[in-house]
Amino acid sequence: MLSKTAIQFIKSLQDKKQRQKYDQFVVEGEKSIAELLKSSYKIVKLVAINSWVAENQLFIKGLECIEVTEEELKKISFHQAPQRVLAVVKIPQFNQHLSADEYTLALDEIQDPGNLGTIIRIADWYGIKKLICSKGCTDVYNPKCISATMGSFLRVEVVYADIIQLAEQYQLPLIVTSFDGENVHTFQTMQKGMIVIGNEGHGVSKEIMQRATYKLTIPKIGGAESLNAAVSTAIVLDNLVR
Amino acid sequence: MLSKTAIQFIKSLQDKKQRQKYDQFVVEGEKSIAELLKSSYKIVKLVAINSWVAENQLFIKGLECIEVTEEELKKISFHQAPQRVLAVVKIPQFNQHLSADEYTLALDEIQDPGNLGTIIRIADWYGIKKLICSKGCTDVYNPKCISATMGSFLRVEVVYADIIQLAEQYQLPLIVTSFDGENVHTFQTMQKGMIVIGNEGHGVSKEIMQRATYKLTIPKIGGAESLNAAVSTAIVLDNLVR
Repeated sequence: MLSKTAIQFIKSLQDKKQRQKYDQFVVEGEKSIAELLKSSYKIVKLVAINSWVAENQLFIKGLECIEVTEEELKKISFHQAPQRVLAVVKIPQFNQHLSADEYTLALDEIQDPGNLGTIIRIADWYGIKKLICSKGCTDVYNPKCISATMGSFLRVEVVYADIIQLAEQYQLPLIVTSFDGENVHTFQTMQKGMIVIGNEGHGVSKEIMQRATYKLTIPKIGGAESLNAAVSTAIVLDNLVR
Repeated sequence: MLSKTAIQFIKSLQDKKQRQKYDQFVVEGEKSIAELLKSSYKIVKLVAINSWVAENQLFIKGLECIEVTEEELKKISFHQAPQRVLAVVKIPQFNQHLSADEYTLALDEIQDPGNLGTIIRIADWYGIKKLICSKGCTDVYNPKCISATMGSFLRVEVVYADIIQLAEQYQLPLIVTSFDGENVHTFQTMQKGMIVIGNEGHGVSKEIMQRATYKLTIPKIGGAESLNAAVSTAIVLDNLVR
């Protein structure tokens, strides 16, 4: 059974300030938690219903696990129809080291947690290991974002930093999508760099656009004015990382 | 000013049954409505605030336009922060004719209106003119879907029909994504066909998979188990329609 304080605490982690204060966030969903248990993430506590606990005895040895009823789980869950388990997890600290041998993805002011989560899932598909978020991006530990990653947050290290500063520090070319760039289908470079995806409404900032080493365009055949940020990410990665 | 009956009627169009009963749906957003006014869609009525009406006098000649206050608009809008205008529009009837000279996109049981809208926007970007939805797909005239298309619903004709039957009737090859198919990066065909995207959870149905002429795989480099339906659509179209 969960105490009133525990219920309040877990629910409070839906709020970014609270997550930052306690350095903790919430993961939900059986599949994500199965992967979480195999990862190096530090689990603070599990909250699960009886049947899940019985099935997962072997995997949760040594972890604090509170058994609850479905009704109790519903009280703390972010989802309307919660799955059988929820985990409170320590927010990890990743270093800012970037490699010139691999593409890095950088997001400039992405606002929507669902978009950020979808982009992390796409990055993971294409083997991107490091994602730089500008300081104005939405918080990766937002439950909507974590849920949209479908477990991929465990394989992509997200670091909040200044995009231009990092690119300069590691002497990485900045690769930016723009309406007047080179065709992404024929673009080739020997130098792997930092692929920057811009804000949902305004694209990448002026400062980044001015310093872009390469500008890429996704050729358009029909009438739509633009593609959304996650879709653009997927197409650029599919063309560059192959 | 809007009568109580009119308010109730417009709000009721958020419900599929009502839309089908009256053959009408709602479009919101200034940009979508600017495009709508230039299209061949039949506008039943506009509901707008004063400033919008003043700016658009020239474009709305001959159309019924009810002026309302912002508060009234909020009452009928699907959005929390409605833009200045909303239109009630006649649902168009498109023929089922398919051309073997162009790719057709078909969706098998897509459930989420946001996904359907995003896919319509992607289809429009790649110049796809006809989208076949299986009968179990979510309704394209759902306000969430229309909103996610960002106006692209005006350029992509959506027809609800049996995918296999139509492909057979027009002798179109079925091109399906699968985990064990040909690499979408190197796949080539002279024959343009029907590209089928499957349900968010289960992919394409057994029946369609069994009849697939070509199976395509999006090569994966990293750890994510899958890509979402809209992202898969974008990558397949970007590789095939170029």
